Amino acid sequence: MAGREAFRSFLTTLRCAETGESHDPSVLQSISRGAGATLLPEYDLEAVRAAVTPAQIRARPADLWRFRELLPLNDPLGAPDLGAGATPLLRLPRLGKRLGMANLWLKDEGANPTGTFKARGAAVGVARAHELGVREIAIPTAGNAGSAWAAYCAAWGIGLHVVMPVDTPDPIKAECAAYGADVTQVRGVISDAGRIVAERSAAAGWFDASTMKEPYRVEGKKTMGLEIAEAFDWDPPDVVLYPTGGGVGLIGVWKAMRELAELGWLRGAPPRLIAVQAQGCSPIVEAWTSGAADAARPDDPYTVANGLLVPLPFAHRLILRILRETGGTAAAVDDAALLDGMRELSSLEGVLAAPEGASLIAALALLLDRGDVARGERVVLLNTGNALKYTHLVDQPAAPPVDPLPA
Amino acid sequence: MAGREAFRSFLTTLRCAETGESHDPSVLQSISRGAGATLLPEYDLEAVRAAVTPAQIRARPADLWRFRELLPLNDPLGAPDLGAGATPLLRLPRLGKRLGMANLWLKDEGANPTGTFKARGAAVGVARAHELGVREIAIPTAGNAGSAWAAYCAAWGIGLHVVMPVDTPDPIKAECAAYGADVTQVRGVISDAGRIVAERSAAAGWFDASTMKEPYRVEGKKTMGLEIAEAFDWDPPDVVLYPTGGGVGLIGVWKAMRELAELGWLRGAPPRLIAVQAQGCSPIVEAWTSGAADAARPDDPYTVANGLLVPLPFAHRLILRILRETGGTAAAVDDAALLDGMRELSSLEGVLAAPEGASLIAALALLLDRGDVARGERVVLLNTGNALKYTHLVDQPAAPPVDPLPA
Repeated sequence: MAGREAFRSFLTTLRCAETGESHDPSVLQSISRGAGATLLPEYDLEAVRAAVTPAQIRARPADLWRFRELLPLNDPLGAPDLGAGATPLLRLPRLGKRLGMANLWLKDEGANPTGTFKARGAAVGVARAHELGVREIAIPTAGNAGSAWAAYCAAWGIGLHVVMPVDTPDPIKAECAAYGADVTQVRGVISDAGRIVAERSAAAGWFDASTMKEPYRVEGKKTMGLEIAEAFDWDPPDVVLYPTGGGVGLIGVWKAMRELAELGWLRGAPPRLIAVQAQGCSPIVEAWTSGAADAARPDDPYTVANGLLVPLPFAHRLILRILRETGGTAAAVDDAALLDGMRELSSLEGVLAAPEGASLIAALALLLDRGDVARGERVVLLNTGNALKYTHLVDQPAAPPVDPLPA
Repeated sequence: MAGREAFRSFLTTLRCAETGESHDPSVLQSISRGAGATLLPEYDLEAVRAAVTPAQIRARPADLWRFRELLPLNDPLGAPDLGAGATPLLRLPRLGKRLGMANLWLKDEGANPTGTFKARGAAVGVARAHELGVREIAIPTAGNAGSAWAAYCAAWGIGLHVVMPVDTPDPIKAECAAYGADVTQVRGVISDAGRIVAERSAAAGWFDASTMKEPYRVEGKKTMGLEIAEAFDWDPPDVVLYPTGGGVGLIGVWKAMRELAELGWLRGAPPRLIAVQAQGCSPIVEAWTSGAADAARPDDPYTVANGLLVPLPFAHRLILRILRETGGTAAAVDDAALLDGMRELSSLEGVLAAPEGASLIAALALLLDRGDVARGERVVLLNTGNALKYTHLVDQPAAPPVDPLPA
């Protein structure tokens, strides 16, 4: 309700994740000129340190924009707000007990608008695109990014063209249509959607907002890491498990911790980041295990977790670098174990996670067995969304219907 | 993360909504002895005033329990927390412009666990039942209360028996089953479910948590009113529109404003409360229009909005009294107008509301036409949930699937 304060972003440059080459952030950018790689926003962190304190941030309203000094928008409080961010960090006492862990948490991104963490990326990505003059966007999606970008584009009055696999769950297709997006379904996976988006965007002049080919979505996802650090009173957890499709959230959490460390706000070491994938589509896990610097597209990728069905994430080299840099690792679980994890989490803790997030339950057991995570460590599972668009994966009640009693 | 402070509830009594007779809150209670009516919790508000200030409440973490001095739990911070409450209050600038309104907001309860406001009632209702020794609960539901109670009962390790109409959307049935609830589907409506719950609970010794026959659920819903008042800096909006099935949320918002007024925390008058129903099931609107003190069950009740399919809310007399007392009114909209409202809200504002909440869009236009709401007033639409369990009501994208481009 309060009046808007004057604000200007502390954004200084966009830096190529491969070569370090600097790019002008005041104009619309996609990938880097030389290497064709992801551009990562940088801020004047000394000026940020002088402008705001962690205590001031904590006193602000609980939303994404409380971290505005670390976001790229010049008018963050003027953005249409759907309520992304400030999601709960839940303790998992019953599951923890079963696993012998006293310090197990779940960051529940299902509380976001459109039910997933994708809303954070869309909140910042769409707002920044609008600031830079974009009035029509196209995006390929495994599903939920489409919903989130459609919701924010509706709120902004920006045209959106979404291309998604024909196997995307119906609720997601319905959402995108309800938000007024132009929806194309392709008989293929997200990389097939990406090629259609590239071709049509080039022809029509739409802004192509493909994962990690657009520099600002990751800044929205970064707020997950900022919130986790803040919730732990700036002494980050030992480990964060992240279900890795395109990997934007993992990159975002890593970027959050780097910036907080450079600001001098962290009281402990950044967490080890662990990428979890589905066995039927695990390019990062394969590359990690073999020690390759590059991931490769698997043959016939498949998983019930639509968000993990990303055959080759554009930022695969950066993701692998982050796993090395943070002392993390990678693990794959099969779909049966993933669905078991979904049931275990819902029946023990009252959280019905989307299959992507549920993959972390099975992965955690595996990582404990392997010794990659110790039972005494403080572990956060990053649940990227709720399961309300995936109830086709959940059993219906077994008992047949009954007749009413006489009145 | 912070350590738990010592706390004891300020609850003093449970008062019959009809006769004012007092009932002991330290033991399990259902309806009032004499009149068989709803019991409403009361607090030692003078002690609350001495114990906490609005500024202290604002400085607490953004969840339901920040209002713990106005809740019935003795150990609120020991309750399993799924993250209910602290939902966003969104501005609706584009819809407002279309309607000629500059001060239109939507309280978006879709951000709650299980996607609806029912989580607030379950968070408090299940926790209080547990405090009073309950280990097995039964609940009749039009759908979403079942999901919410199932989630919280899972987190508490309490057994739950849910009885719901066979026409409840599949995602809701799947949710309840995934949370481990025992689900019975009845060929009928919520009143038929209620009779089965009453019979089985009496036989098996389960606690019957039927709407407004259990005194604490309303206290959870009350936090919606507390949050609205706080968001408006304790000068409440002029009008709140509420989609009325069982009416617990309306009673909760009214109760919140009464307690805040008595505390002396309000800087303005409490809002007029307006009950919105579906034309096919509008007992409150019928009674309001005819001036009757009692509502009557309609013949062949029907609406696509499952949460509004409550043929005769148990607390109908109290609901009607609240409409009179606050200077409110009641309005019904047909299902076609309701679905139009759903499309308008999603395409203009990026909010895909459940049909119950979407009914408020059509109702608002009607209320403006009737002069019951003025265009310059500050109006809050209480959207009770998101539409992710109701995407069968939303059109799928029209365009047929396409083949991938050559790689």
